[in-house]
Amino acid sequence: MCKRALHYPQVETPPPQPFLKSLKNTLNEILFADDPFRKIRNESKTSKKIDLVLRHVFPILEWARGYNLNYLKSDVISGITIASLAIPQGISYAQLANLPPILGLYSSFVPPMVYAIMGSSKDLAVGTVAVASLLTAAMLGKEVSAVENPKLYLHLAFTATFFAGLMQTCLGLLRLGFLVEILSHAAIIGFMAGAATVVCLQQLKGLLGLSHFTHSTDVVSVFRSIFSQSHMYKLLKLLKVLYSNFVIYSLSLSLSLSLSLSLSLSLSLSLSLSLSLSLSISYLKHIVLNASEIVFWLYHCKLILYEKIENVLYYYFIGELKKGINPPSITHLVFTSPYVTLALKTGIITGVLALAEGIAVGRSFAMYKNYNIDGNKEMIAFGMMNIFGSFSSCYLTTGPFSRSAVNYNAGCKTAVSNVVMAVAVAVTLLFLTPLFFYTPLVVLSSIIIAAMLGLVDYEAAMHLWKLDKFDFFVCLSAFLGVVFGTIEIGLILSVGISVLRLLLFVGRPKIYLMGKIQNTEIYRNIEQYPQATTLSGLIILHIDGPIYFANSSYLRDRIGRWIDEEEEKLRKSEENSLQYIILDLSAVGNIDTSGISMLEEVNKILGRRDLKLVIANPGAELMKKLSKSKFIETIGKDWIHLTVAEAVSACDHMLQTAKPDSPEIFSGVPEFNNV
Amino acid sequence: MCKRALHYPQVETPPPQPFLKSLKNTLNEILFADDPFRKIRNESKTSKKIDLVLRHVFPILEWARGYNLNYLKSDVISGITIASLAIPQGISYAQLANLPPILGLYSSFVPPMVYAIMGSSKDLAVGTVAVASLLTAAMLGKEVSAVENPKLYLHLAFTATFFAGLMQTCLGLLRLGFLVEILSHAAIIGFMAGAATVVCLQQLKGLLGLSHFTHSTDVVSVFRSIFSQSHMYKLLKLLKVLYSNFVIYSLSLSLSLSLSLSLSLSLSLSLSLSLSLSLSISYLKHIVLNASEIVFWLYHCKLILYEKIENVLYYYFIGELKKGINPPSITHLVFTSPYVTLALKTGIITGVLALAEGIAVGRSFAMYKNYNIDGNKEMIAFGMMNIFGSFSSCYLTTGPFSRSAVNYNAGCKTAVSNVVMAVAVAVTLLFLTPLFFYTPLVVLSSIIIAAMLGLVDYEAAMHLWKLDKFDFFVCLSAFLGVVFGTIEIGLILSVGISVLRLLLFVGRPKIYLMGKIQNTEIYRNIEQYPQATTLSGLIILHIDGPIYFANSSYLRDRIGRWIDEEEEKLRKSEENSLQYIILDLSAVGNIDTSGISMLEEVNKILGRRDLKLVIANPGAELMKKLSKSKFIETIGKDWIHLTVAEAVSACDHMLQTAKPDSPEIFSGVPEFNNV
Repeated sequence: MCKRALHYPQVETPPPQPFLKSLKNTLNEILFADDPFRKIRNESKTSKKIDLVLRHVFPILEWARGYNLNYLKSDVISGITIASLAIPQGISYAQLANLPPILGLYSSFVPPMVYAIMGSSKDLAVGTVAVASLLTAAMLGKEVSAVENPKLYLHLAFTATFFAGLMQTCLGLLRLGFLVEILSHAAIIGFMAGAATVVCLQQLKGLLGLSHFTHSTDVVSVFRSIFSQSHMYKLLKLLKVLYSNFVIYSLSLSLSLSLSLSLSLSLSLSLSLSLSLSLSISYLKHIVLNASEIVFWLYHCKLILYEKIENVLYYYFIGELKKGINPPSITHLVFTSPYVTLALKTGIITGVLALAEGIAVGRSFAMYKNYNIDGNKEMIAFGMMNIFGSFSSCYLTTGPFSRSAVNYNAGCKTAVSNVVMAVAVAVTLLFLTPLFFYTPLVVLSSIIIAAMLGLVDYEAAMHLWKLDKFDFFVCLSAFLGVVFGTIEIGLILSVGISVLRLLLFVGRPKIYLMGKIQNTEIYRNIEQYPQATTLSGLIILHIDGPIYFANSSYLRDRIGRWIDEEEEKLRKSEENSLQYIILDLSAVGNIDTSGISMLEEVNKILGRRDLKLVIANPGAELMKKLSKSKFIETIGKDWIHLTVAEAVSACDHMLQTAKPDSPEIFSGVPEFNNV
Repeated sequence: MCKRALHYPQVETPPPQPFLKSLKNTLNEILFADDPFRKIRNESKTSKKIDLVLRHVFPILEWARGYNLNYLKSDVISGITIASLAIPQGISYAQLANLPPILGLYSSFVPPMVYAIMGSSKDLAVGTVAVASLLTAAMLGKEVSAVENPKLYLHLAFTATFFAGLMQTCLGLLRLGFLVEILSHAAIIGFMAGAATVVCLQQLKGLLGLSHFTHSTDVVSVFRSIFSQSHMYKLLKLLKVLYSNFVIYSLSLSLSLSLSLSLSLSLSLSLSLSLSLSLSISYLKHIVLNASEIVFWLYHCKLILYEKIENVLYYYFIGELKKGINPPSITHLVFTSPYVTLALKTGIITGVLALAEGIAVGRSFAMYKNYNIDGNKEMIAFGMMNIFGSFSSCYLTTGPFSRSAVNYNAGCKTAVSNVVMAVAVAVTLLFLTPLFFYTPLVVLSSIIIAAMLGLVDYEAAMHLWKLDKFDFFVCLSAFLGVVFGTIEIGLILSVGISVLRLLLFVGRPKIYLMGKIQNTEIYRNIEQYPQATTLSGLIILHIDGPIYFANSSYLRDRIGRWIDEEEEKLRKSEENSLQYIILDLSAVGNIDTSGISMLEEVNKILGRRDLKLVIANPGAELMKKLSKSKFIETIGKDWIHLTVAEAVSACDHMLQTAKPDSPEIFSGVPEFNNV
C-alpha cells in the first residue's frame, strides 16, 4: 500500500500566448462560438468558395435545388392555411397598434417574400405580433396622438420599423446576437402573460362601448378610466351596451376560439383539392363571422337611429379598406428631430422583442425537424425583411409562434409557404378588400383575445416555481411590471433582475467544506454527501465560482469565518489544532487582480496564525496569473497539487514528519486496491 | 485488478429544504457573510448581551477599558502630526471644492470626534479628500455657481454631505456594503490617476494667473480655455505672470513635497517632549511657507501699485478666516426642489467614492496590525460622522490614505489620535486663524499638486497590464473617461466595463476537452496538460461556470461543435465512431430553468445522433434541480456518476458488453496499484 501518490504530475502552467493571439481567440469564442464559416474556410477552390458564400447569404439557393412538386403541394396547402389566419390577425393587430387596418395586410405581403429568400427556417411564418403592436402604440402614442395626427403617427411607425430592421441587421452582421439572450425564458413567459393581460384590458374599450379611454396600459389606469365614466346617468346606458356587446362577444369569441383550432386542422386534412376551392373555404371563417356581424348590426339598429351613422361606422366597423398592394413608403421615413429619437427608441425595443420571439420560434421548430439555425443569420434575415417592409408600408414583423405552429401543423416543407401566403394576401388586397367593410371591431377584439389567452402560460409559470424560485420571481416581476406599470417597466425589471442574478452568482460564490468519501480518495461537499468525513488538522474549502473584485472581500471574510468556526470547534473538543487550509480551486474559472491580492492577503493572514495555505487543482487561466504574480513562489510550488487527495496526503506526510510520536491522524491513502 | 469502481457511492441529492428556510439561508449568506453577531447570539445572559451589543455599536467602549498612558503619549504625537497636515490640506481641498477655506478646518473638528466613538479602525485619520472635493465642485457647479450664489452653493454642499451620510448609514444598516465592491481595485487606480490629472490641470488657473477659467474638468476644455485667453495683447502679460508664478511655484512645491515627508518623521522622532512645544513646531511648516509668502508678496508689490488692492487680495491670498469653532448648519440644509435632487445625486456619488476609499484604507492598515474591520460597521461610522458633519458646517469627510498613512507612521495606537487632531484644529480655529491671512493661493495649489502626484500610480497600472489585460483596460478607461470626459463618465465607464466582465464570464463560460493523465485515473484539460490523452469512442467536456439563460444557447452550440469536430476527425482517421458524451459538471455551480431546457435539448439532439449523454459529478444545487425537473429520470440514474473516471469506466464496460469481439479500446482503470 503506497503512502502518497507522489508520482502525480505537477500542475501545469499553459505556455504563454502573445496578447493579440489570445485576444483573437477570446473574441472568436465570444462572437463565432459556432464557427459558421468552417466549411467555407476548408474549401480550397475559389469558385466553390463563392458558391458556398452565396448559399450562406441566401439559403434559398441551398434548398431551391432539391425542390419538387410534392414539396410545392404541401407548401401551397400550409401557405393558404396561414393566409387565412394572417388576414384577420393582421387587421386586428394593426388596430392594436392604432394603425390603419390595411397595414396588417400589407405587412403579410412584402416581409414574407424577403424572408423566403434570406431566412434559414423552413417552418417560420412571417407576420405581425400582438405584443410588438401594442408596444408600438404605447411608445409612439405617448408623444404623438394617432387620432389627432394620424399621418405623422403612421410615418413614425414606418421609421421605427426601419430602425428595428437596421438594428437587427447590425446585430446579425456584428455577430452580437447573444445580446438578445439577456431576455431569459422566464422573463419572456412573464412578459407575454403581462402583455396578454394588458391587451385584453384594452379590449374593454370595445366591450364596454366606451368612447373615451385611457392611453395608459396599466390595470389601475384602465379601471379608473372605466369607473370615472360610470356616473349615475351613464350607468344605465353602459349596462345596456355591456349586455348587448356581451352576447356578440361571447358568440364571436367562442367562434374564433373553436375556429382557429379546427380550421387549420380541417384545412390541412381535407382541402388539398385545388387552390381556388381552398381559397374560398379558407374564408369560411369570415363568412361564419359575418353571421355574428348581422346579429350585431340588427341589434344596434336602434342605436343608429339616434346617433350619426358615420360615427357608428367609425366606432363599430372597420370601414373601407383601400384596394391595391403596398404603396411605397420610403419617402415617408422621418429623420428629423424631435421625432427621430422616439422612433429609434421604439424601433430598438420592439425590434429586440420581435427578434427574441422570432429566433426562439425558429429554433424550436428546427429542433423538432433536426436542422440547424444560425441565430445571427436569422437576425440579418429579420432585419432585411423589416427594412424592406418599412419601404413598402409595412410595420414590424417577425415570426409569431401561433402562425408558425399552424404552418408546421399544416405540413409546410420550405419557406415557399410564406410566398404562397404573400400571394394569397396580395390577391385579397387586389380584389377582396370590400368584403371586410362590415367587420365589427368587436369581432377583431375577440380575435385578439383568442390569440392572447394562449399567451398566458400558467403551467410554465408553475413549472418555474417548482424548479427555480428565482426564475419564477423574474417571471412574476415581468408580469407585474407590465400589468401595473408599463411594458417598458416590465421589460427593464425582468432584465434587471435576471442580470442581478448573474451578478449575485459571481458576487457570492458558494464556498463549502469538503470531506472524504469513505473507502475512496474522493473529496466532496459534506452537505451533499453526509457520509463524507472531515479530517482533523486541516480543512478543505471548495470555491464554486470565479474570484473577482466583486467577491474577493466576501471570500476573504468567509474563509476567515470557516477557520474561526473550525478552531472554536477544535478548542471545545480538545482535538489536534488546525494546521492546513486546502483550497480546492477546481471550479474557479478565472481570477482578476483583486482576486490575486485577496489570495495573497489570505496567505499572509494564515501565516500570522501559523496556518499553511495549500492549493489544489488550479485551472489553466489561474496558473497563468498566479505564476505571473509570483504567488506560486510565495506559497511554494510544492504546495500546489493536482488533486485534493494529493494535497491531503502531502499535508499528512508533513504532519507525520513533524510529530513522529503522534498516531496517524487520518489516512489520505488511495484505497482502490482494497476493492 | 478491478475493472470498475462500482462500489462508489451514488451522486446524492441533498434533502429538500422548505422554501422560506432556504431563502433565509441565502439572504444570510449575502448579507451576513461574516456572521458579525455570532458572539452576541452565543451569549446567554441578558446583561452581558446588552453589554456586547453596546460594544458592537460603539467600539470605543471596547478599547477604552484597556487604554493607558503609553497609548496616550503615542496618540498625542500622531494626533498633532496629522493636525499639522490637516490644516493646510483642509484649506486647499476646500478651495478645490469652491467652498470657503475655513470649511476645511471645520471638517477636521467634528467628524474625527464622531469617528473616534463609532469607528473600529485604530489607524484611520479622518479628513476631506481631493477627489470628492473636486467632484462636489464639478457636480454642484454645473447648476449653481459658487461665485454668483455662494450661499446656496454652500448650503447645497451641506445637504449633499447629509445625503452622503444618510446613504452610507443606510448601506451599513441594511448590510449592503457589498454594493461598494462594484468599484474594483483596477477601476480605483485609473480613476484616482485621472482625478489627480484633472485636479492638477485645474491648478493651471492659479499657475497662469487666469481670471476666467472653464468650469469643465476635461483636458480639451481646459486647454481651449487657456488658449482662448492668449490673444496677442494679453500674451505679454501672461508670460510675465507665468514667469513670476513659476518661481514661487517651484519653490513652494519643492518645500511642501519635502516637508510632508520629513515633517512627520522628524515630529514623531524628536518632538515628544511636550504638547505646547510640538504644537508650535508643528507650525514650523507654515513659518517656512511664510518665507515663500514674503518673497511672493514683495514680487507682486508692483502689481499692487496698478491694480486694486482688494482685487489682488481676493485673487492671490486666502484672506480673512473667521475665528471660532464650527457654527451650526442644520437649518441650512436644502430640501426644496429643484436643488434637492442635485444634492442627492452629488451626495450619493461622492459618498460612494468616499466610502470606497475609507474602507479600503481601514482594511489595509487593519491587515498590517492584524485586527478585523467590519465593513458594514465602518459604513455606519462614516455615515454618522457625515450626518453630524453636515449639521455643523462640515462637508464630506472620509479616511484619506495620505493622512492615515502619516497617522500610522507616527505610531498612533487608537482613535484618540483623531480626537487630538480635532482639539489641535479647534485651538487653531479659536486663536490662530489670523496667521493664515497672507497664505498665497499658489501655495495651496502646490500643496494640492504635491498630494495629487502620489495618486498617479504608474507601477500599479503596469502591474495590472502584466497580470490581467482586462483589469488594465478597466483602469485605462476609468482614467481616459475622467481626463477626456467628466468624473462621472470615468466612473460609469469603469463600473460598466467591470460588470461587463462579470457578465461575460457567465455568458461565455469556458468549455474544454478533458483527457486522461497517464498512469493515473485523473482527467484534466488537455490544453493545460498536453500529456493527457483523449479516449476513442467518447469525449469528455468540462463546463467551467454556471449554466444560465445567458449562456445556454452558447453551450448548446459549443457542445454541438465539439461533437461535429470530433466526428469529422474520426471519419478521417477511420477510427471507432463516437458513442458517449461525458459532461463533467463539477464546476457548474448553479443552473436555471433555461439551463435545464438546454440540457434536455442536448440530450434529445444526442439521442437523434445515436449518442449517449453521461453526467459526471453534478453538485448539490444541480442535483436538486435536475431531479425536480425529471431530467435524471430522462437520462437514467445509472448515467450520473460521481467522478469522470467512473463515468469513463461505465462507458467502457458498456462498449465491452455491446461488442464482445472488439479489443479493449481504452483502459479506464484505476492504476494506483501499479505504483
